[in-house]
Order: sequence, then C-alpha cells, then structure tokens
Amino acid sequence: MQDDMLEQLKRGADEILVESELVKKLEENRPLVIKAGFDPTAPDLHLGHTVLINKLKQFQDFGHDVQFLIGDFTGMIGDPTGKNITRKPLTKEDVLENAKTYQEQVFKILDPDKTKIVFNSTWMDKVSSADLIQLAAKHTVARMLERDDFSKRFKGGQAIAIHEFLYPLIQGYDSVAMKSDVELGGTDQKFNLLVGRQLQEVYGQKPQTVLTMPILEGLDGVQKMSKSLNNYIGIADAPDDMFGKIMSISDELMWRYFELLSFRPMSEVGHWHEECNAGANPRNYKVALAQEIVERFHSAAAAKKALENFEARFKRGVIPDEMDEVSLQAIDGGFAIANLLKEAGLTKSTSDSMRMIKQGAVKINGEKVSDPKLIVEAASKHVYQVGKRKFARVEINP
Amino acid sequence: MQDDMLEQLKRGADEILVESELVKKLEENRPLVIKAGFDPTAPDLHLGHTVLINKLKQFQDFGHDVQFLIGDFTGMIGDPTGKNITRKPLTKEDVLENAKTYQEQVFKILDPDKTKIVFNSTWMDKVSSADLIQLAAKHTVARMLERDDFSKRFKGGQAIAIHEFLYPLIQGYDSVAMKSDVELGGTDQKFNLLVGRQLQEVYGQKPQTVLTMPILEGLDGVQKMSKSLNNYIGIADAPDDMFGKIMSISDELMWRYFELLSFRPMSEVGHWHEECNAGANPRNYKVALAQEIVERFHSAAAAKKALENFEARFKRGVIPDEMDEVSLQAIDGGFAIANLLKEAGLTKSTSDSMRMIKQGAVKINGEKVSDPKLIVEAASKHVYQVGKRKFARVEINP
Repeated sequence: MQDDMLEQLKRGADEILVESELVKKLEENRPLVIKAGFDPTAPDLHLGHTVLINKLKQFQDFGHDVQFLIGDFTGMIGDPTGKNITRKPLTKEDVLENAKTYQEQVFKILDPDKTKIVFNSTWMDKVSSADLIQLAAKHTVARMLERDDFSKRFKGGQAIAIHEFLYPLIQGYDSVAMKSDVELGGTDQKFNLLVGRQLQEVYGQKPQTVLTMPILEGLDGVQKMSKSLNNYIGIADAPDDMFGKIMSISDELMWRYFELLSFRPMSEVGHWHEECNAGANPRNYKVALAQEIVERFHSAAAAKKALENFEARFKRGVIPDEMDEVSLQAIDGGFAIANLLKEAGLTKSTSDSMRMIKQGAVKINGEKVSDPKLIVEAASKHVYQVGKRKFARVEINP
Repeated sequence: MQDDMLEQLKRGADEILVESELVKKLEENRPLVIKAGFDPTAPDLHLGHTVLINKLKQFQDFGHDVQFLIGDFTGMIGDPTGKNITRKPLTKEDVLENAKTYQEQVFKILDPDKTKIVFNSTWMDKVSSADLIQLAAKHTVARMLERDDFSKRFKGGQAIAIHEFLYPLIQGYDSVAMKSDVELGGTDQKFNLLVGRQLQEVYGQKPQTVLTMPILEGLDGVQKMSKSLNNYIGIADAPDDMFGKIMSISDELMWRYFELLSFRPMSEVGHWHEECNAGANPRNYKVALAQEIVERFHSAAAAKKALENFEARFKRGVIPDEMDEVSLQAIDGGFAIANLLKEAGLTKSTSDSMRMIKQGAVKINGEKVSDPKLIVEAASKHVYQVGKRKFARVEINP
C-alpha cells in the first residue's frame, strides 16, 4: 500500500530530492505541507500547467495539505529595472482578482475544501530590509551563478540585476515561512526549490523534499507547450477544440500525455500501450484520452458531444486520419507561409498561396490564417490545410 | 582666488571624478554637502584616518557643509554570515557611544559647530525590503564583480555572500538620502563612491563629485598605517611618543606627511624641500612637522615640552640620528625576533637575544618586546634597539 502510494507519487516525476526523505515523511502518517508556487500575473492555464496541479491532486487525495502559494510580494514590486514596461507592478486588487481566476481554474482539478491559497506578502511584508540583508547573507554569489540561466547570461555578457539574486532567496524563504515538507515545481525550477531546502536547514527546519515535474511538450511534440508558440490546449478551450487538438497529436506524444495528464492508473495505460504495439489502432486510445480531458474541464456530456462532432467531421473528411508529412529547413529562423504551402504541395505557387490566404481558405491547426506575410517559426510542427481537402503536417527544422 | 581654492582642495588628492564638475559646483557659491562615511565600530583614530578629516576641514574652512556619516544601519546588523564571532551586532547604545568617541577625536580637527554627524539608520530604518529590492535592481552583478576585492575573491574561489553586494548599494543610497555634492574617501573606497554617483543619477539627482585620498603609509614608509602592523601614530598618543615617532620616519616619508598631514601651505613646504635638496638638515623640518602634529592633538605647550624632552634624550644618545640599515629576507612570511637581532648585529647569538628580551632590554620602535618567540611580520621596517646604545633599522622583505 505504502509502495503503491510512492509509485503513484513518482509517476511522471523528473526527480525527487531526496526520495528516501520522502518515504520517511510519508511514514510519519501526518498531513504533509505540499507547496507549489505560482506567478501572480493574470493566469490563463493550459494543460502544461496542469501537470503540476495533477501531482498536487495526488498528494491531496492521499490526505496531504496542499498549499497553493501565490508569489504576490514580488509581483507587487513589478519590474524594478524599468526595462520591461509591460511588467507593471500589480496592485493588491489585481492580485486578488488573479487569485480568483486561478482558483476557478485549479479547482477543476483540486478539491476547493482541501486547498489552501496562501500569499507570500503575508510574511514578506513583515520582513524588514535588515532581515532581507540577513537572508542574503545565507547564500553566495558563486552558488547563485550556478543557476543555469544566470550562468548562461553571465558568460554571455548579458546583464543580471542584483535583485534577481534576491528572488530565489525570497522563494526559498517562503518554504521556511510555510514550513513546507514537499515542494513541487517544473524541472526549470529545480535550483530555486533547492534554495528552499538550504534555507530551511539554516533556519533549523527539516529540509523540504523537492519533486520536479517535466515541462510538457506542446501539440508539436517538440517545443514546450506555450501560448506564444500556439501549440497549447487551454483549459478554457471549447470542448470541440480541446478534443480536436488532442486527436491531432502524434501517437508517441499520446503516451506522454497519458502519463502526465491522465488520471488512469499506469498499469492500465501500460496495458493499452502493449495492445497498440500488438497492432491495435492508437486512435481509439486517443479518443479515450481526449474524452477524459474534456470531461475534466467541461463535463461527461460535453465529452460525449465532442466525440460525436469529431466523428461527424471525420466522416465528412474534414480531418483526415492520415496526411503527408513534410520537413522543411528554416530560412533566417522561420519560413514564409506562402512558400511553405507551395513547398508542402498544398498550392501551385506562392501567388496561389497568397490568393488562398486572402480567400480565408488556409488554416494552421484548424485556425484561419489572415496574414499572407506570416513567418512560421522554426522548430514547429503544425497541420496546414488549404481548402476542404488538402492537408499536410509540416515540420520546420531550425 | 578660485584657482587657489581648487589648488588647495586638490592637495594630496589621488583622484577627482570629475574635476570640471567640482569646479562648477564651487562656482555656485553655496555651501556644498560634503559627505564622508565612517565605520561605526569602536574608533581609535590614527594619523592615517586624519588624511580624510584634514580634507574635510579644508572644505569646512571654505564654508561648505561637512556631514560626517556614521554607517550604523549595517553595523547594527553585525556579521550575518555568522562566521566572524568577533563582529557582533552593535546596539543603538554602542553606536551612540562610539559616535561620541569619534566626535571627541575628529573635533580636534573639525569645527564642532559646523560639522553635522549623521547616522544612516535615520533613513535606512524606513527602507522596506521591497524598497531594498528596487535599489538592488539598479545595479548589475557583472559591474559589482568589477570591484577589486570582489573580483579577486571570485576568481580565487573565495565565497562572496550575496548581502555583500547590497552594502555598496546602501552606501550609495546614503548619498541619495544626503543629497551629497562631494564624497570623500580613501582610494580603496573608489568603487563604492562611484556607486553613489550612479544611484544619484538614477534617483534624478546631480551626481556627487568623488574625491579620493591616498592611504597613508605607516612609520615604515611601506605598509599602510594600521594598528595591527604597529606602524601607526595614534591621535591619542602621548606627546612624547607622537613626537618621537615622527622624528623616526625617513626623510622621504616626511615630505609625504607634510603634504597629507600638515596644514602649512604647499608653497612653504615646497620651499623647505628645495632648501633640503640644497643641503639643509632635514631634521629641522621634521621637528617642525612633529611640533605641528603634537600641537594639533595636544597643545602648543605640549609640543614645546615634547621637543625639549626629545632633545634631552637625543643629547644623552638615547635615540641616534643615524643608525645601521639592515635588510633581511623573510622566512615563511616573517622573521623570528631572536634571529633578527643576531643578523642585525645587535646581539652575539640567538640565546643572547633571548636573554636580552627577558631582561626587557629590547625595543621595537621604542616599545618594549616581551615575547622572545615573537615573529616579526614581513614587509615591515622598524627601529630595533638593544640596551641603551645599540640601534638598527631593519627591513624584512617578503
């Protein structure tokens, strides 16, 4: 039972530092404080964010005390370098408003009654500048420069403002203030989570166990899921979009999504994977995944309806089951859409491409293209459609 | 007149950044705010410290507003790394007590009625941790690592705690809070003084002019004057000691001391220097310097008496006018006193040395040596005396 619990908590995790500590904590049979920090900026979650929230849910289901930390203290400072005019300081009202939006979204996964939402301004507002200096004395410049992004910027001669060294310390101090037992974060947060461990030791606490989750790949299966790369599934996406996007992913990515996004037991997922390897049609399992996800963020009825709509469109040939796979080499970091369509054999010429775009007949991943001069970013893989029948999956290599 | 004023202010200065700015400020014909910062630790000033205070006095004599800044804010934090148990946090009482001791000493040079003593806790106590983060955003890690000692430690793999990056910023922010027009400091403070300039610009002020003064050499003429090297003249030294120590310095160092410690016009000093070059006895000028210094820290009567005492001892042969100059090579960074005395020809053997030390017959710079196992530090130059008549000036090369 204990073993099974650990196995479930380890599902999909990238690293656990240190696993033996986690085992000991679990054996204490008390609700552990599970910390996960989130930016207080206006949240619009996609499935990539839910990888972590799903892990929180597992801890919650095992009776642990999930604390959803909103880092509003630094958010209310804004961007003090003044270089980024879009990062204005948030007001208290902004923070509360954003927190509400967060809650509406995460409570589609977490149990509202069992989830604490905490704000680090609660304790940070009481930290004086003298206290902050004492905190800064607990870490060295050399160790801070070991952090991947700092190290790259420092070597590359890009400026690092000194306050950037204070933020990981504040994030670490949050663990002290919360008496965190376990902190979850993305693999890109590992350094900061370890600062928390270190500071807890300095402050005489048992250091938190750090559990990192991988960064979810987007629909292209290559780049990380992100809004700016337009390879995401928003948790507020309409059921048909959500369903269709999941059906569009590669078989390989499907198993990744099963591991990180599905709540089905891994034993079942493993069994399905074997069935596929033995010749079963992956499409059927993709449908099951799509339905589970739509049901989670909408409803069972919406999932059923989405499947029906999808099959109707499928039967009408709206979305082909198979299509040409084309691989192109980026030019200057991207590829002009008109040339891309021609190279992929979807149009006869670039002027033909232009005409089709102006007629509204061109779609990328089902979304209409309006700019005939669009440059598609490199390292992307999207489904391109011209008219009703012509499809190609085109990858742009960097 | 203006030119003469500038010439006087430039006397002995190492650098003025930027001189043209200083000229403009002087032409504004208003009292300029002249800042100089001092450690709040228990002060026991020697002539090395007075180089800066003398420069403050010049500004004061020209009608400027001298502000003597005591950096008590960080002093009251202590050593937050906890590595240095001797650097305990100061209490408010300690700070006030030390400030009083400072005043008693500096008011031997500065006019008490025209000198403001300010404490940076006055404004720093009101700076919140959020404000401190904003301050830290105004400077970069790379620029901070350009500071000489940081750069050396970083390259040498020695730890730099992150709060050490905050201290120069706080010192710079002091200039903002004080609206400093000119800041004086030792050459070793140049980096920090320039941070003040930069921060004032960020905060919309005209940047302070930075005037650095050289670090005064001690009696050996080689190392900087410091208590731990025992090559200092304390401003609380008794008149006879003060007088005798000045009489012991080399002729070359005398002209240096004239420039940095005497209030005589440089034209007069220059004239004396020429007289010496033409064959006059330097001893007479040294007497004038010794008398000026003793008079400043004691009284005209004390200076007169010190000269009489010195001449009486001189006549009795207590201090020779000339003595052997010996140069030795350090062994493991120093030289054992017993061997040193033997090598310098002051004793017949090391056991003879030991015996003389035990009898209290050995002096270094007039101070009795009690430890027969004393290791004299390298890079030092002292007068060694055995009995009443044997003298040698011994330099230990590193």
